[in-house]
Amino acid sequence: MPEVDLAAVTADALAAIRARRPLIHQITNYVVMNDTANVTLHIGASPVMAHAIGEVREMVRHAGALVLNIGTLDPSWIEAMLAAGREANERGVPVVLDPVGVGATTLRTDTVEAILAAVRVDVIRGNAAELSAIAGLAAEIRGVDSVSASAPGEAARIVARRTGGAAVASGAIDHVTDGTRAALVENGHPLMGAITGSGCMATALVGAFLAVQPDAFLAAAAAMVAFGVAGEIAAEHSAGPGTFRPQLMDAVYGLDGEVVRLRARARVTEVRPT
Amino acid sequence: MPEVDLAAVTADALAAIRARRPLIHQITNYVVMNDTANVTLHIGASPVMAHAIGEVREMVRHAGALVLNIGTLDPSWIEAMLAAGREANERGVPVVLDPVGVGATTLRTDTVEAILAAVRVDVIRGNAAELSAIAGLAAEIRGVDSVSASAPGEAARIVARRTGGAAVASGAIDHVTDGTRAALVENGHPLMGAITGSGCMATALVGAFLAVQPDAFLAAAAAMVAFGVAGEIAAEHSAGPGTFRPQLMDAVYGLDGEVVRLRARARVTEVRPT
Amino acid sequence: MPEVDLAAVTADALAAIRARRPLIHQITNYVVMNDTANVTLHIGASPVMAHAIGEVREMVRHAGALVLNIGTLDPSWIEAMLAAGREANERGVPVVLDPVGVGATTLRTDTVEAILAAVRVDVIRGNAAELSAIAGLAAEIRGVDSVSASAPGEAARIVARRTGGAAVASGAIDHVTDGTRAALVENGHPLMGAITGSGCMATALVGAFLAVQPDAFLAAAAAMVAFGVAGEIAAEHSAGPGTFRPQLMDAVYGLDGEVVRLRARARVTEVRPT
Repeated sequence: MPEVDLAAVTADALAAIRARRPLIHQITNYVVMNDTANVTLHIGASPVMAHAIGEVREMVRHAGALVLNIGTLDPSWIEAMLAAGREANERGVPVVLDPVGVGATTLRTDTVEAILAAVRVDVIRGNAAELSAIAGLAAEIRGVDSVSASAPGEAARIVARRTGGAAVASGAIDHVTDGTRAALVENGHPLMGAITGSGCMATALVGAFLAVQPDAFLAAAAAMVAFGVAGEIAAEHSAGPGTFRPQLMDAVYGLDGEVVRLRARARVTEVRPT
Repeated sequence: MPEVDLAAVTADALAAIRARRPLIHQITNYVVMNDTANVTLHIGASPVMAHAIGEVREMVRHAGALVLNIGTLDPSWIEAMLAAGREANERGVPVVLDPVGVGATTLRTDTVEAILAAVRVDVIRGNAAELSAIAGLAAEIRGVDSVSASAPGEAARIVARRTGGAAVASGAIDHVTDGTRAALVENGHPLMGAITGSGCMATALVGAFLAVQPDAFLAAAAAMVAFGVAGEIAAEHSAGPGTFRPQLMDAVYGLDGEVVRLRARARVTEVRPT
Repeated sequence: MPEVDLAAVTADALAAIRARRPLIHQITNYVVMNDTANVTLHIGASPVMAHAIGEVREMVRHAGALVLNIGTLDPSWIEAMLAAGREANERGVPVVLDPVGVGATTLRTDTVEAILAAVRVDVIRGNAAELSAIAGLAAEIRGVDSVSASAPGEAARIVARRTGGAAVASGAIDHVTDGTRAALVENGHPLMGAITGSGCMATALVGAFLAVQPDAFLAAAAAMVAFGVAGEIAAEHSAGPGTFRPQLMDAVYGLDGEVVRLRARARVTEVRPT
C-alpha cells in the first residue's frame, strides 16, 4: 500500500472546501443545530438545515453532502431523512450518518437500521459505544453518552465492512477505517468531550470534507485531523468548556494548510485480513 | 427543626453528581436545549434530549431525573411530557417541571394543569409570576417574562402544598419551599437575568441535584445555591451578558465543594403554619 | 423631502425600547432561536417564542411586533405563521418577515407567497439574493446563502412597492426602502457574515424597533444602524467569528444613544420615480 500523508490530504481538502464552498445539507438534532451550522461555515462550506418532507429532495440536489443526525428524533424527521438519503444516493451526493444514542432506545436502533437498509451511507461517525452497538459488540450506552466499549477499532471495522463505506469511532484517539485501510488520529483535546455536540460538529465537518474528497476514508480521516488540530489550538486559549467553545469556532475558522501540516498526528495503516 | 447547612448539602450533592454521573432526561424547549445540555454536562451529569412518543418511556427508565419544560409547546410534545412523566412516576424517577410562560396563554396554563393532574411533580421551578399564576395569585405575565408578582414566597408555598413536592420561585432572591421548610438563597448575579434561558438552566440543575439528593426541598435549594455561586464567579470575568454566558459555563464546570462552602449565602427556616 | 437624521431616529427608538420593553413574538427557525432571543433581550425588548397553532393568536395579541422567519419550515409552522400573521394584522401588531432561503426550494418560495397573500407585512428583511428572488430579479441562491445578486437596492424597491411596507436587502451595505425613501446603512463588519444567524438577529431587532417606531422604513433603518454599530464595536474585541458572537451580544446590550450618534454612517435619500 502506498504511504498516505494525511496532513497533506487534510490541507488539500481544506483548500478545496474554501475554494468551492460546498452546500452541506443537514437534517440534524435541535441541540446542536447552531453549532454544526457555525462549524460548517467556519471550515469554509455553506450549511443549510431543512427537514420538511416537502423540500428535502429538492434541497439535497444542490448539496455537496448530506448529513443525517438522529439526536432528537420524530417520525416526520425519520421520513425526511430516508427521503433525503435516497435522493442523495440517486444524485450521487455523499451521505454521512451520526447515529446519536443508537442502542439507547429501540427507536434509535430501528431508525439506524432503517437508514442503513434504504440509504447507501458513505461515512458513519459515532462514539465507540455507538459504533459497537451497530456492530453488535458489547457496549454500555446510557442516553447519548458512551459509557464503555472495549474495541473501538474493531467496531469501526465491522461497521465499515457492513456498509461498504467508511466508519469513525471517535474518542481520545479516533479510529477511522473503510475495512481495508485504517487511520489513527491522535489530534484533539479532552475539552472537546466536555461540551455538548462536539461529536455532531465532527460529523458536520466530515460532510464538508466529503464534498471535496471523494475517497470517504480519506475525507473522514481528514475531517478528524482538522477538527482535532482546531481543538488543540482552542484549548490553549480556554479556561474551561464554556470559553473553549468560541475558541474552537475561531480555531476552525483560522485553520490553514500550514498549521495542519505542523500539528497533524495521524497515520494510515493497512488492515490485516481477519 | 434541626439546623440545616445548605452549603454542606450542596457540596455533598455536587460530589455525588460527579461520582455517579446521572442521566438527566430533558423534554425542553428549542431555545435553551443547547444551554441546558451543556450546563447539565458541566455540573457533572449526563444530559439526554428525547421527545418522540416512541422513545420517551424507554429513555426515562434509565434516567436519574426527568425535566419537563413547556417553553415551546406543541401537541405532540405535550403528549410526550405526559407519557414520560407517568412512566417516571411508576419507575420512581423524580420529575422537575419548568412552567415557562404559564398564565401567558391558555395552552400553557392548560398544559401545566394537565401535567399536575397526571404526574407527581417533585419540584416546580419558575419565576415569581409563573409560580403566582399556578398559585392563583395576582401576577403580570407577558410572554415568558415575569413583569410583577408581589409575594414569591407565598406563591411557592401554595404551589408546594398543592403538589406535595417542593417549589422554587427564583429571582434576585430564590424562594425554595416544600410547604414546611423554606430556604432563601441569596447567591446569584443580575447578569443571570440578562440572558435567555438562565431559569431553564437552573431547572436542569435541579434535575441533576434531585438525581442524587432524594429530599426534593434540599435538592432544589442546593441547585439554586450552586447555580447562584457559579453566576457570581462568572460575573467577575464578564463585560456583559454575551461574555457572561461562556464564563457561566466555565464556572459551573469549575465548581467544587470548597468554593460552594466559601460563597453560599442561604439559610433554611421553618414555615409558620398559616 | 425633509432631511432625516437616522442616528437620532435610532437613538430615540433605542431609548423607547428600553423604556417600554415590548414583547416580540417570534416564530422562527431552530438554528437561531437562542441567538435571536438573546439579541432581543439585550436590545431591551422581551422575546417570546411560541409556534403552536393553539396559542399563537393569543400570544401575538400582547406583542409589540411579530417576527416570522422561514429558516426551518414544517407544515404546522407555516399554518402557525399564517394564523399569527392574520391575527397581528387584525390587532394592529406590526409584522416582520425573514424569507430565509426563498428561491432555494419551492416550499420556501410558496410559503413566502402564501404569507404575502394572507398577511400585510410591514418589513421584509433578507439578503440581496432573497430580496431578488421575491422581486423576480436574477439571483443565485444555494441553500440559504446569497451567492450573487446584482441590484440589491432595486430588489428592495420592487419588494417594498409590492408589499406597501419597507424592505431591507442587507449586506456590506444595507439597502432599506419603502419605495419612496431609501437609506444606505454603511455600519457593520465582515465578521457579521461569518456567523450563522446574523441576518436573523437583524430581523429580530427590526421587530423590536418596529414595536416603538410606527414608520416601518425608519424602524428598519434604525435597526440596521444599531446592529451595524454593535457589530463594529464587537469586531474590535474579537479574534474570529467564535469570539465575535459573545462580543456582539455585549455590544448590543451596551449600545446607547451616544455611541449610536458617534458611529452611525447612514443617510436617507428620496427614491426617484421610475
